Amino acid sequence: MGKQNRRAFIINTAVLGAGTLAPRLATADKKKMIIHHVFFWLKNPSSKEDLAKLIAGLQTLKNIKTIRRIHIGLPAATEERSVVDASYNVSELLFFDDLAGQKIYQDDPIHQKFIADCSHLWDKVVVYDAVDV
Amino acid sequence: MGKQNRRAFIINTAVLGAGTLAPRLATADKKKMIIHHVFFWLKNPSSKEDLAKLIAGLQTLKNIKTIRRIHIGLPAATEERSVVDASYNVSELLFFDDLAGQKIYQDDPIHQKFIADCSHLWDKVVVYDAVDV
Repeated sequence: MGKQNRRAFIINTAVLGAGTLAPRLATADKKKMIIHHVFFWLKNPSSKEDLAKLIAGLQTLKNIKTIRRIHIGLPAATEERSVVDASYNVSELLFFDDLAGQKIYQDDPIHQKFIADCSHLWDKVVVYDAVDV
Repeated sequence: MGKQNRRAFIINTAVLGAGTLAPRLATADKKKMIIHHVFFWLKNPSSKEDLAKLIAGLQTLKNIKTIRRIHIGLPAATEERSVVDASYNVSELLFFDDLAGQKIYQDDPIHQKFIADCSHLWDKVVVYDAVDV
Protein backbone atom coordinates (compact mmCIF):
# COMPACT_ATOMS: atom_id res chain seq x y z
CA MET A 1 0.00 0.00 0.00
CA GLY A 2 1.50 3.36 -1.08
CA LYS A 3 1.47 6.43 1.13
CA GLN A 4 -1.53 7.96 -0.69
CA ASN A 5 -3.51 4.74 -0.58
CA ARG A 6 -2.74 4.25 3.07
CA ARG A 7 -3.93 7.76 3.81
CA ALA A 8 -7.13 7.21 1.79
CA PHE A 9 -7.69 3.95 3.66
CA ILE A 10 -7.29 5.69 7.00
CA ILE A 11 -9.72 8.45 6.04
CA ASN A 12 -12.29 6.02 4.65
CA THR A 13 -12.08 3.96 7.81
CA ALA A 14 -12.61 7.10 9.86
CA VAL A 15 -15.66 8.06 7.78
CA LEU A 16 -17.13 4.56 7.97
CA GLY A 17 -16.49 4.53 11.70
CA ALA A 18 -18.32 7.83 12.16
CA GLY A 19 -21.20 6.47 10.08
CA THR A 20 -21.88 3.72 12.59
CA LEU A 21 -22.54 6.35 15.24
CA ALA A 22 -25.45 7.99 13.46
CA PRO A 23 -28.66 6.00 12.85
CA ARG A 24 -29.32 3.78 15.85
CA LEU A 25 -32.72 2.64 14.55
CA ALA A 26 -32.46 -1.08 14.03
CA THR A 27 -34.81 -0.88 11.07
CA ALA A 28 -31.82 0.57 9.23
CA ASP A 29 -29.97 -2.72 9.81
CA LYS A 30 -30.34 -5.38 7.17
CA LYS A 31 -29.62 -8.24 9.54
CA LYS A 32 -32.52 -10.02 11.24
CA MET A 33 -31.50 -10.35 14.87
CA ILE A 34 -32.65 -12.96 17.36
CA ILE A 35 -33.97 -11.24 20.47
CA HIS A 36 -34.08 -13.25 23.70
CA HIS A 37 -35.92 -11.57 26.59
CA VAL A 38 -36.11 -13.28 29.97
CA PHE A 39 -38.15 -12.10 32.96
CA PHE A 40 -37.35 -13.37 36.46
CA TRP A 41 -39.59 -13.39 39.51
CA LEU A 42 -37.55 -13.86 42.69
CA LYS A 43 -38.48 -16.39 45.35
CA ASN A 44 -37.84 -13.65 47.92
CA PRO A 45 -38.77 -10.45 46.10
CA SER A 46 -38.07 -8.32 49.18
CA SER A 47 -34.47 -9.57 49.50
CA LYS A 48 -32.09 -6.96 48.16
CA GLU A 49 -29.30 -9.53 48.58
CA ASP A 50 -31.00 -12.05 46.30
CA LEU A 51 -31.65 -9.30 43.75
CA ALA A 52 -27.97 -8.31 43.81
CA LYS A 53 -26.89 -11.96 43.45
CA LEU A 54 -29.12 -12.47 40.43
CA ILE A 55 -27.90 -9.27 38.77
CA ALA A 56 -24.27 -10.26 39.46
CA GLY A 57 -24.96 -13.67 37.91
CA LEU A 58 -26.52 -12.07 34.84
CA GLN A 59 -23.49 -9.77 34.48
CA THR A 60 -21.29 -12.84 33.93
CA LEU A 61 -23.26 -13.68 30.76
CA LYS A 62 -21.79 -10.77 28.85
CA ASN A 63 -18.62 -12.80 28.40
CA ILE A 64 -20.43 -15.25 26.13
CA LYS A 65 -19.07 -14.55 22.68
CA THR A 66 -22.23 -14.87 20.57
CA ILE A 67 -24.08 -12.13 22.50
CA ARG A 68 -24.20 -8.97 20.39
CA ARG A 69 -26.02 -6.79 22.92
CA ILE A 70 -27.04 -7.27 26.54
CA HIS A 71 -29.36 -5.28 28.79
CA ILE A 72 -30.05 -6.26 32.38
CA GLY A 73 -33.15 -4.46 33.57
CA LEU A 74 -35.45 -3.64 36.46
CA PRO A 75 -39.13 -2.68 36.14
CA ALA A 76 -39.27 0.89 34.83
CA ALA A 77 -41.41 3.53 36.51
CA THR A 78 -43.72 3.96 33.53
CA GLU A 79 -47.42 4.64 33.93
CA GLU A 80 -49.41 1.84 35.61
CA ARG A 81 -51.74 0.34 33.03
CA SER A 82 -53.64 -2.95 33.01
CA VAL A 83 -51.58 -4.22 30.06
CA VAL A 84 -48.22 -3.51 31.75
CA ASP A 85 -46.75 -6.38 33.75
CA ALA A 86 -44.44 -4.74 36.26
CA SER A 87 -44.51 -7.70 38.66
CA TYR A 88 -41.17 -9.22 37.58
CA ASN A 89 -37.98 -8.41 39.48
CA VAL A 90 -35.18 -8.57 36.92
CA SER A 91 -35.01 -8.86 33.13
CA GLU A 92 -32.31 -9.95 30.73
CA LEU A 93 -32.43 -8.88 27.07
CA LEU A 94 -29.96 -10.45 24.67
CA PHE A 95 -29.39 -10.01 20.94
CA PHE A 96 -27.86 -12.70 18.74
CA ASP A 97 -26.97 -12.75 15.05
CA ASP A 98 -28.87 -15.98 14.48
CA LEU A 99 -30.46 -19.06 16.05
CA ALA A 100 -27.07 -20.79 16.14
CA GLY A 101 -25.69 -17.95 18.28
CA GLN A 102 -28.60 -18.33 20.70
CA LYS A 103 -28.02 -22.08 20.94
CA ILE A 104 -24.30 -21.58 21.61
CA TYR A 105 -25.27 -19.19 24.42
CA GLN A 106 -27.68 -21.74 25.93
CA ASP A 107 -24.96 -24.40 26.02
CA ASP A 108 -22.06 -22.14 27.03
CA PRO A 109 -20.43 -23.15 30.35
CA ILE A 110 -20.81 -19.55 31.58
CA HIS A 111 -24.59 -19.78 31.09
CA GLN A 112 -24.70 -23.22 32.65
CA LYS A 113 -22.75 -21.93 35.68
CA PHE A 114 -25.18 -18.99 35.98
CA ILE A 115 -28.13 -21.43 36.12
CA ALA A 116 -26.35 -23.66 38.65
CA ASP A 117 -25.43 -20.68 40.86
CA CYS A 118 -28.62 -18.64 40.59
CA SER A 119 -31.66 -20.82 39.77
CA HIS A 120 -32.43 -21.25 43.47
CA LEU A 121 -33.10 -17.49 43.59
CA TRP A 122 -36.06 -17.43 41.25
CA ASP A 123 -39.58 -18.71 41.53
CA LYS A 124 -40.64 -18.14 37.93
CA VAL A 125 -39.04 -17.37 34.58
CA VAL A 126 -40.76 -16.36 31.35
CA VAL A 127 -38.81 -16.25 28.09
CA TYR A 128 -39.79 -14.62 24.80
CA ASP A 129 -37.70 -15.31 21.70
CA ALA A 130 -38.31 -13.11 18.68
CA VAL A 131 -36.80 -12.71 15.23
CA ASP A 132 -36.94 -9.42 13.34
CA VAL A 133 -39.64 -9.36 10.64
CA MET B 1 -2.50 21.50 12.96
CA GLY B 2 0.90 20.28 11.60
CA LYS B 3 1.19 17.39 9.21
CA GLN B 4 2.17 14.95 11.97
CA ASN B 5 -0.63 16.08 14.24
CA ARG B 6 -3.16 15.88 11.45
CA ARG B 7 -2.01 12.36 10.66
CA ALA B 8 -2.24 11.39 14.33
CA PHE B 9 -5.74 12.89 14.47
CA ILE B 10 -6.81 10.90 11.43
CA ILE B 11 -5.40 7.69 12.86
CA ASN B 12 -6.99 8.26 16.25
CA THR B 13 -10.32 8.97 14.61
CA ALA B 14 -9.95 5.79 12.59
CA VAL B 15 -9.18 3.79 15.73
CA LEU B 16 -12.11 5.31 17.61
CA GLY B 17 -14.31 4.72 14.58
CA ALA B 18 -13.28 1.10 14.34
CA GLY B 19 -13.94 0.80 18.06
CA THR B 20 -17.61 1.57 17.55
CA LEU B 21 -17.83 -1.37 15.16
CA ALA B 22 -16.47 -3.92 17.57
CA PRO B 23 -18.18 -4.24 20.94
CA ARG B 24 -21.90 -3.84 20.41
CA LEU B 25 -22.52 -4.87 24.02
CA ALA B 26 -24.80 -2.30 25.56
CA THR B 27 -23.05 -2.72 28.90
CA ALA B 28 -20.35 -0.58 27.34
CA ASP B 29 -22.87 2.27 27.12
CA LYS B 30 -23.12 4.60 30.09
CA LYS B 31 -26.71 5.59 29.42
CA LYS B 32 -29.53 3.71 31.15
CA MET B 33 -32.07 3.06 28.44
CA ILE B 34 -35.80 2.51 28.85
CA ILE B 35 -36.82 -0.71 27.13
CA HIS B 36 -40.47 -1.13 26.15
CA HIS B 37 -41.41 -4.61 24.93
CA VAL B 38 -44.96 -5.32 23.78
CA PHE B 39 -46.35 -8.74 22.85
CA PHE B 40 -49.53 -9.02 20.77
CA TRP B 41 -51.88 -11.97 20.46
CA LEU B 42 -54.11 -11.62 17.39
CA LYS B 43 -57.87 -12.12 17.52
CA ASN B 44 -57.53 -14.22 14.35
CA PRO B 45 -54.08 -15.78 14.69
CA SER B 46 -54.50 -17.73 11.45
CA SER B 47 -55.19 -14.59 9.38
CA LYS B 48 -52.08 -13.64 7.43
CA GLU B 49 -53.89 -10.45 6.42
CA ASP B 50 -54.40 -9.36 10.03
CA LEU B 51 -50.77 -10.18 10.80
CA ALA B 52 -49.63 -8.04 7.86
CA LYS B 53 -51.90 -5.17 8.94
CA LEU B 54 -50.52 -5.22 12.48
CA ILE B 55 -46.92 -5.29 11.25
CA ALA B 56 -47.65 -2.42 8.83
CA GLY B 57 -49.17 -0.45 11.71
CA LEU B 58 -46.13 -1.09 13.89
CA GLN B 59 -43.84 0.05 11.08
CA THR B 60 -45.43 3.52 11.26
CA LEU B 61 -44.18 3.90 14.85
CA LYS B 62 -40.56 4.27 13.73
CA ASN B 63 -41.34 7.85 12.75
CA ILE B 64 -41.84 8.82 16.40
CA LYS B 65 -38.83 10.92 17.24
CA THR B 66 -38.03 9.70 20.76
CA ILE B 67 -37.57 6.08 19.64
CA ARG B 68 -33.86 5.24 19.64
CA ARG B 69 -34.19 1.66 18.39
CA ILE B 70 -37.12 -0.39 17.12
CA HIS B 71 -37.47 -4.10 16.46
CA ILE B 72 -40.70 -5.66 15.21
CA GLY B 73 -40.57 -9.39 15.79
CA LEU B 74 -42.20 -12.75 15.25
CA PRO B 75 -41.75 -15.81 17.50
CA ALA B 76 -38.28 -17.24 16.82
CA ALA B 77 -37.76 -20.93 16.11
CA THR B 78 -35.73 -21.53 19.25
CA GLU B 79 -35.96 -24.77 21.21
CA GLU B 80 -39.39 -25.47 22.75
CA ARG B 81 -39.06 -25.25 26.53
CA SER B 82 -41.67 -24.89 29.25
CA VAL B 83 -40.36 -21.43 30.17
CA VAL B 84 -40.54 -20.10 26.60
CA ASP B 85 -43.80 -18.38 25.67
CA ALA B 86 -44.01 -18.65 21.88
CA SER B 87 -47.78 -18.18 21.79
CA TYR B 88 -47.74 -14.48 20.86
CA ASN B 89 -48.03 -13.41 17.22
CA VAL B 90 -46.07 -10.16 16.94
CA SER B 91 -43.71 -8.24 19.22
CA GLU B 92 -42.55 -4.65 19.32
CA LEU B 93 -39.34 -3.71 21.11
CA LEU B 94 -38.55 -0.03 21.58
CA PHE B 95 -35.65 1.78 23.24
CA PHE B 96 -35.94 5.26 24.70
CA ASP B 97 -33.39 7.55 26.32
CA ASP B 98 -35.58 8.10 29.36
CA LEU B 99 -39.10 7.90 30.83
CA ALA B 100 -40.01 11.23 29.24
CA GLY B 101 -39.19 9.82 25.81
CA GLN B 102 -41.45 6.85 26.47
CA LYS B 103 -44.28 9.14 27.58
CA ILE B 104 -43.91 11.29 24.45
CA TYR B 105 -44.16 8.10 22.39
CA GLN B 106 -47.35 7.04 24.21
CA ASP B 107 -49.00 10.39 23.50
CA ASP B 108 -47.67 10.86 19.95
CA PRO B 109 -50.44 11.15 17.30
CA ILE B 110 -48.69 8.43 15.26
CA HIS B 111 -49.00 6.02 18.20
CA GLN B 112 -52.59 7.06 18.84
CA LYS B 113 -53.41 6.48 15.16
CA PHE B 114 -51.79 3.04 15.33
CA ILE B 115 -54.04 2.12 18.29
CA ALA B 116 -57.14 3.49 16.56
CA ASP B 117 -56.33 1.63 13.33
CA CYS B 118 -55.07 -1.66 14.73
CA SER B 119 -56.48 -2.37 18.20
CA HIS B 120 -59.40 -4.32 16.70
CA LEU B 121 -56.82 -6.83 15.44
CA TRP B 122 -55.57 -8.02 18.81
CA ASP B 123 -57.14 -10.04 21.56
CA LYS B 124 -54.43 -9.55 24.18
CA VAL B 125 -51.41 -7.34 24.77
CA VAL B 126 -48.71 -7.71 27.41
CA VAL B 127 -46.20 -4.92 28.02
CA TYR B 128 -42.92 -5.06 29.93
CA ASP B 129 -41.08 -1.84 30.68
CA ALA B 130 -37.51 -2.11 31.94
CA VAL B 131 -34.72 0.27 32.82
CA ASP B 132 -31.07 -0.74 32.62
CA VAL B 133 -29.55 -1.55 36.01
